[in-house]
Amino acid sequence: MKAAFVLIRCELGRIDEVANKVMEIDGVSEVHSITGPFDLLVKLYAPTTEAFGDLIPGRLQRVPGIRETETLLAFRAFKPEG
Amino acid sequence: MKAAFVLIRCELGRIDEVANKVMEIDGVSEVHSITGPFDLLVKLYAPTTEAFGDLIPGRLQRVPGIRETETLLAFRAFKPEG
Amino acid sequence: MKAAFVLIRCELGRIDEVANKVMEIDGVSEVHSITGPFDLLVKLYAPTTEAFGDLIPGRLQRVPGIRETETLLAFRAFKPEG
Amino acid sequence: MKAAFVLIRCELGRIDEVANKVMEIDGVSEVHSITGPFDLLVKLYAPTTEAFGDLIPGRLQRVPGIRETETLLAFRAFKPEG
Amino acid sequence: MKAAFVLIRCELGRIDEVANKVMEIDGVSEVHSITGPFDLLVKLYAPTTEAFGDLIPGRLQRVPGIRETETLLAFRAFKPEG
Amino acid sequence: MKAAFVLIRCELGRIDEVANKVMEIDGVSEVHSITGPFDLLVKLYAPTTEAFGDLIPGRLQRVPGIRETETLLAFRAFKPEG
Amino acid sequence: MKAAFVLIRCELGRIDEVANKVMEIDGVSEVHSITGPFDLLVKLYAPTTEAFGDLIPGRLQRVPGIRETETLLAFRAFKPEG
Amino acid sequence: MKAAFVLIRCELGRIDEVANKVMEIDGVSEVHSITGPFDLLVKLYAPTTEAFGDLIPGRLQRVPGIRETETLLAFRAFKPEG
Amino acid sequence: MKAAFVLIRCELGRIDEVANKVMEIDGVSEVHSITGPFDLLVKLYAPTTEAFGDLIPGRLQRVPGIRETETLLAFRAFKPEG
Amino acid sequence: MKAAFVLIRCELGRIDEVANKVMEIDGVSEVHSITGPFDLLVKLYAPTTEAFGDLIPGRLQRVPGIRETETLLAFRAFKPEG
Repeated sequence: MKAAFVLIRCELGRIDEVANKVMEIDGVSEVHSITGPFDLLVKLYAPTTEAFGDLIPGRLQRVPGIRETETLLAFRAFKPEG
Repeated sequence: MKAAFVLIRCELGRIDEVANKVMEIDGVSEVHSITGPFDLLVKLYAPTTEAFGDLIPGRLQRVPGIRETETLLAFRAFKPEG
Repeated sequence: MKAAFVLIRCELGRIDEVANKVMEIDGVSEVHSITGPFDLLVKLYAPTTEAFGDLIPGRLQRVPGIRETETLLAFRAFKPEG
Repeated sequence: MKAAFVLIRCELGRIDEVANKVMEIDGVSEVHSITGPFDLLVKLYAPTTEAFGDLIPGRLQRVPGIRETETLLAFRAFKPEG
Repeated sequence: MKAAFVLIRCELGRIDEVANKVMEIDGVSEVHSITGPFDLLVKLYAPTTEAFGDLIPGRLQRVPGIRETETLLAFRAFKPEG
Repeated sequence: MKAAFVLIRCELGRIDEVANKVMEIDGVSEVHSITGPFDLLVKLYAPTTEAFGDLIPGRLQRVPGIRETETLLAFRAFKPEG
Repeated sequence: MKAAFVLIRCELGRIDEVANKVMEIDGVSEVHSITGPFDLLVKLYAPTTEAFGDLIPGRLQRVPGIRETETLLAFRAFKPEG
Repeated sequence: MKAAFVLIRCELGRIDEVANKVMEIDGVSEVHSITGPFDLLVKLYAPTTEAFGDLIPGRLQRVPGIRETETLLAFRAFKPEG
Repeated sequence: MKAAFVLIRCELGRIDEVANKVMEIDGVSEVHSITGPFDLLVKLYAPTTEAFGDLIPGRLQRVPGIRETETLLAFRAFKPEG
Repeated sequence: MKAAFVLIRCELGRIDEVANKVMEIDGVSEVHSITGPFDLLVKLYAPTTEAFGDLIPGRLQRVPGIRETETLLAFRAFKPEG
């Protein structure tokens, strides 16, 4: 499985609503509200890099209340989760 | 346990060396090399917020080959790891 | 108690109105109008880091007249207030 | 008394050392290590705006280990400390 | 008297209209149209730092045609006007 | 006479030294230490726009302790000094 | 033939739709969805530099769902495609 | 005569329309479509610096289809056109 | 095969030297000198995403004369080369 | 002939020296010192786009005293010089 991290900026006051909807998307394994210019950090898994190309614009970016996303794709897990 | 994410920019050509050293620090649970302006994304756990105040400048930032770090602290895990 | 600082950018001409509303939120201990790109600096206290995750999007960001917020969470108070 | 907030970026691994020196400067009332692009947030008091003009470049910026500072001056305390 | 400088970005084609309105505000001593990302530089005087806290959001930012302002407060005049 | 404003960033702790040297340059009419990312705001007068082309790189930028300058040239004084 | 690369930012959730329309434009030889602040990277060929001046604003920028484009023109192919 | 360069960002797909209108303004001597974040570079001449203060907001910025302008004023022509 | 694009900023005057060395790296299929803030755009192919994690820091970033790199990884080729 | 514009940032106090050297390069038709973050704007002509790929890194960027350059290539001259 490949891992990607998506940073999300929400419309003011809608962080909880966005987080709850994002949690239900297949492949989403972690959702954290965070300090700094972005509001949420999401960790996703997909079987291939191409699959993120569907998942992120096709599912994630369509959650209402999202203003902006930025994707960090993992090249390699030096130390994978656990 | 509290979670924090640290984005790291390394000196050119030293990503692997930094990643290997960072993996050995207590509390580090994941290390990924990533696309974009930063080179590594590190996930850390600590028992309290104060403990990150020791761990990040005291241990992580002292790894040779690091040029810059930026810390994102998790307020809340909507969906924790797993 | 944990401390956080929130920088707020207001809609033009609404700084006083926002400041007055923010002052009434539980946990807000200081509100200053400041020079620079942001208009207000707010200091908040909460019993846990998680509590800021409720307080900031749930109460603070809903004050009308706010355009943007940025949160700085304190890891540790080297010299606490007073 | 007038209040000012100074954001400080330190050389890697020197946050504690800088914080300890800054705490000893007259007029410094709070020192917090914080998340985000800066490392420390310092609150200072001085009798006049002019006095900050001496205190910040003359005392604060001379602490070894500081890379950069940015000053936010408070116009007015809507809700002062307490 | 304290001095402050306010940089103003206007809506396209409305620089003259904004400048003429700003000139009539009490405490405004100079208004220049300037090169660079901002359109106008305004110099203001007020008896206290707190007074700018009223003057800038309460009077200046309410002039129609202003898109954005940034305030530089003078700590000290090494060489005052003249 | 034409007016220009030069924003100056100094090396840490050298603001006073730079301000004192800048004050002695012919054509410099005001020097203020200011809040925000720059340290000093200087107002200069010269008989022609070309003269600034000599004055700023030839005299001002050679003052020791300056790290960076940015020049804002006044097109027109809607309300000149006074 | 001359080569140019155009980076495209799309409205949220419309990457696939934009990519499909861009692929049909004459001269477009590659379309990739990419990580980072932009969503698509497009490679175009045209017989002259002037031709890009028609192709990019006249055809490419008119595809619905595009928010912003940035063009990188190739001076020289050290190693051309293949 | 004094020279100024104005960088213009246009609404998507309206570069040609803007360029054609800008060309007709008195004092405009060159109009180029360019690579990078801006779309057009315009060279203007005026008898005095003050005249640009009229020409740029009064004529140029009123051309429909312009989103943003940034003006670079020439202090001195080391090597004038030709 | 997966595709990645690497933008490279070189030390002043060393673009040709860097381009010539980069061309010899296995997996590099195109090298273009480009307009804008970066100097070179490189297209690379590798059998897996992980392989870029070796190729970019291990081979590409070690070419002398490189100041900075930024990697754009292709999720999907809507229209592959040709 | 093709036109390009190069924006140059010089080391402090070396603008005149750089301008004088740049003027002697073949193809350079104009050199202006300018307001804003860059110090010089240079206009160059070359017979082909490829020729700029030699001229800019090979001749221009090697002039001593230059800190940074940014190139804007003209796609098309709507209104050429004259």
